[in-house]
Amino acid sequence: MFILVNLKAYPCDPIEVATAARDVAEESDVRIAVAPQAAHLSAVAETGVETWAQHVSPNEHGSHTGSTLAEAAADAGATGTLLNHSEKRMKLADIDASLDAAERADLETIVCANNPTQIGAAAALAPDAVAVEPPELIGGDVSVSTADPGIVEDAVDAAAAVDENVDVFCGAGVSTGDDVVAAGDLGATGILLASGVAKADDPKAALEDLVSGL
Amino acid sequence: MFILVNLKAYPCDPIEVATAARDVAEESDVRIAVAPQAAHLSAVAETGVETWAQHVSPNEHGSHTGSTLAEAAADAGATGTLLNHSEKRMKLADIDASLDAAERADLETIVCANNPTQIGAAAALAPDAVAVEPPELIGGDVSVSTADPGIVEDAVDAAAAVDENVDVFCGAGVSTGDDVVAAGDLGATGILLASGVAKADDPKAALEDLVSGL
Amino acid sequence: MFILVNLKAYPCDPIEVATAARDVAEESDVRIAVAPQAAHLSAVAETGVETWAQHVSPNEHGSHTGSTLAEAAADAGATGTLLNHSEKRMKLADIDASLDAAERADLETIVCANNPTQIGAAAALAPDAVAVEPPELIGGDVSVSTADPGIVEDAVDAAAAVDENVDVFCGAGVSTGDDVVAAGDLGATGILLASGVAKADDPKAALEDLVSGL
Amino acid sequence: MFILVNLKAYPCDPIEVATAARDVAEESDVRIAVAPQAAHLSAVAETGVETWAQHVSPNEHGSHTGSTLAEAAADAGATGTLLNHSEKRMKLADIDASLDAAERADLETIVCANNPTQIGAAAALAPDAVAVEPPELIGGDVSVSTADPGIVEDAVDAAAAVDENVDVFCGAGVSTGDDVVAAGDLGATGILLASGVAKADDPKAALEDLVSGL
Repeated sequence: MFILVNLKAYPCDPIEVATAARDVAEESDVRIAVAPQAAHLSAVAETGVETWAQHVSPNEHGSHTGSTLAEAAADAGATGTLLNHSEKRMKLADIDASLDAAERADLETIVCANNPTQIGAAAALAPDAVAVEPPELIGGDVSVSTADPGIVEDAVDAAAAVDENVDVFCGAGVSTGDDVVAAGDLGATGILLASGVAKADDPKAALEDLVSGL
Repeated sequence: MFILVNLKAYPCDPIEVATAARDVAEESDVRIAVAPQAAHLSAVAETGVETWAQHVSPNEHGSHTGSTLAEAAADAGATGTLLNHSEKRMKLADIDASLDAAERADLETIVCANNPTQIGAAAALAPDAVAVEPPELIGGDVSVSTADPGIVEDAVDAAAAVDENVDVFCGAGVSTGDDVVAAGDLGATGILLASGVAKADDPKAALEDLVSGL
Repeated sequence: MFILVNLKAYPCDPIEVATAARDVAEESDVRIAVAPQAAHLSAVAETGVETWAQHVSPNEHGSHTGSTLAEAAADAGATGTLLNHSEKRMKLADIDASLDAAERADLETIVCANNPTQIGAAAALAPDAVAVEPPELIGGDVSVSTADPGIVEDAVDAAAAVDENVDVFCGAGVSTGDDVVAAGDLGATGILLASGVAKADDPKAALEDLVSGL
Repeated sequence: MFILVNLKAYPCDPIEVATAARDVAEESDVRIAVAPQAAHLSAVAETGVETWAQHVSPNEHGSHTGSTLAEAAADAGATGTLLNHSEKRMKLADIDASLDAAERADLETIVCANNPTQIGAAAALAPDAVAVEPPELIGGDVSVSTADPGIVEDAVDAAAAVDENVDVFCGAGVSTGDDVVAAGDLGATGILLASGVAKADDPKAALEDLVSGL
C-alpha cells in the first residue's frame, strides 16, 4: 500500500508534514510520500521523505514561462507526479504529453479521474497508476468504503480491462486506518489523501492511524 | 465510408458546400455530412444535408452563457458532433461529459485524437467513433496513406483493443478519391476533411472526386 | 435604458422569449434585445427582435474548429455580443482580440467584469459598454440597488475615469421595474438579466414589469 | 533601470545565471533579478540574487492542487512575480485575483501585455509595472528600438493615461546594452529578457554588456 499525502495549497507547514511522513514511513515500513507546492519541493525533499509533484506541464524545455517543467521538479527532488487532479483537470492530449515529460524526467505517474469510464481512458495512456476520485466524496467526511465501494471495484475493473499493469489508487473518501484497509480490500494499491493529514493537529498521529491496519 | 466535411471558421459559403454535399450524397449513395459553425447549423440543415456540430460543451441546461449546448445544436438540426478536434482540445473529464450531453441530445459522436495512445483513451470513453489526426499531416498536402499508413492501422488496433464497437476515422491527410480508398484499406470507416472541400473552387467536383473510388 | 435578456443555456423556448421581447420593445419604445445560444441566433433574429450573441471567439476566419466566429454570428442575425461573461471568462488578450473581431463583423459589444477595478480595465479596451456583475448578486434574489448600490456607482466612476464614452450596464441584481429605475439612477444605461425573464412563467409580463417605470 | 532575466523552461543552469546576475548587480549597482521555474526558486534565492516568480495563481490557500500559490513562492524566496506573460496568458479576472494574491504575499508585480490597448487595461488593475511585449518582437533578433520604437512610447502613454504610478517595462526586443539605453530613452524603466542571457555561452558577459551603457 502506498500513501500519498497531497498538501494542495493548504496553509500547513510542509516541513512538519514531510518530517512526520518520513518518520512514520521508516517506523512502519509503509511507503508514504508527500506532494507539496512546486516551490516547496526542494525543502520537502531535503527532509528525506519521498517527494511528489502535484502536477507537471506537458511541455519540454523551451519558451514556456510559468510552466511546471518535469525536469525542474525532478531537479528539486521529486520522484513522481500527480496528473489531472480534480482541481487541475487537463486536456487529454496534455495528459499524454505530461506522461511523456514525466518519463523523460524519470518521474512516476498517477493520473486522477472521476469515474470508471475516465479511469479506463486514463489507463489507456499507460501511467504507472490511476486514482479514482468520485466527485461526491472529494473533501467530504464520507468514507469511500461505506458510501460507494462499487466505484473502487469498478475502477479496478475498468483499468484492468485496458491495461493490467496500471495500479489503481483510491483518490477520495479515505481518512482512517480502517478506510485504508477497506480500500485495499477493494483492490486499491494506494491512497491519495490531503486534509486528513495536512490539516490534522498532529500529522504524525494521523499518519500512524492510517498505517495502523497494514 | 462516411465523409464528414468540417467547415471550421473558413470564409466559405456554408450553403454552397452543404448543397453540393447533399447532391453528391444522393447521387453517389455515399454518406456525406457537413459541420458548420454553430450559428450556421440551422441554415445548413435546411438544405437537407446531414449536419454535424463542430463541438458541444460538457454542460447541461442551466447557467452556462457562451456554451454550445448539445440540445441547442440538435434543435438547430445537428445529428452528430465532433469532440476534441485538434483546434478545440478538451479536458478528459469534459470529453466524457460532452459525450453524455451528446447522448442526451441524440447526437452521434466522433472524438478526435493525436496518436494511437490517445485514440485508445478516446475509445475507452465509448463514443460512436474516434478520428486520428496525426499532427504532421494536419493542414498539409501529404496523404496519410503515403506518409505514414502505420498510424491509421495502429489507431484501428488501439481502438479495437479497448472497444471493438468504436469506428475509426482518418482525420487528416485525405484530399483525393485515392486517399479515401487507401484510408478504407487501412481500416478506417470514415474520413474527416476540411479545406479540400471547403476551400475548393468547386466543392461539388471535389466531393465527386472523393467518392469516385467507392 | 437598454434591456438585454441573456438566455444562457436555459431550457426555455427562445422563440417565445424573443417574440415577447420584440412586442414589449415595440409597445414601450424601450430598447430590448435577446441573447440566445449561437445555434438559436437565426431563429431568434427571424422574430424581428434585436439579437445578440452570448460570446464570440477572438479568432478571424481560418482553421478554428469549434470557435464562435463573429462573422458567423452576424450572418445569423446578431448585431451585438457579450464578452467575458462571468460564466465565460476570457483572457485579457482574447477580450481585446474578440473586440477586434466584433468590430470587423459590425457587432456592438458589452464586456462584463466582476468589480470596479476590472471594469476600469475592461473600459480601457474600448468596448461600447461594460457590465458590472458583482459575484454576490449573480443568480440571487437580492437587488443591486438595495444590496450594494455603491458598486454600480463605483463602476460608473471607474469606467468614466478611463474612457467617458463607455456605457455602464448593471449586470446582476435586477429583476423588477423598480430595480431598473434604481440602476438608472445609479448611472447605468443598461441592464443585463437572465432568469427573471427567461425562466418566468410569462416572459412578456416580466418584461412589461421591467419597463414599467421608464 | 531594472533588468529581469526570465529563465522560462530553458535547459540552462539556473544557479549559474543567478550567480552571474548577483555579481553583475553588485558590481554595476544596477537592479537585476532572475525569474526561474517555481521548483528552482529556493535554489536561486539562496545565491542572494533578487528572485522573481514567473507566475502565481489567483487562488488563496486551500484546495488548489497544482496551483502556484503566491505565499509558497514568497516562502521560497521570491519577492516579485510576472503575470500574464505571453506564454502564460491569463483571464482578466484571474490577473486581478493574482495581483491580490501577490499583495497578500508581499510580491512586486509586472503584468505583461501585447499592445498599448492591453497595457492600458493592465495598468487599470494597478500592478507595480506593466511590460509591453509586441508579438512581432518576441523571441526575435530585432531590437524594439529599431523595429518599432513607437510601441514603447505608446505603451508609456497608455499606462500613464490610466495610472501615472505604473512603471512600463520593455518586454521584448532587447538584447544589447544599446537596446537597454534606447528602451530607457523611450520611457521604459525596466527590461524583461530571456534567451539573451539564459542561453548565452557566458551569461555574466551578456549581463555586463546589458548594463554597460547605464
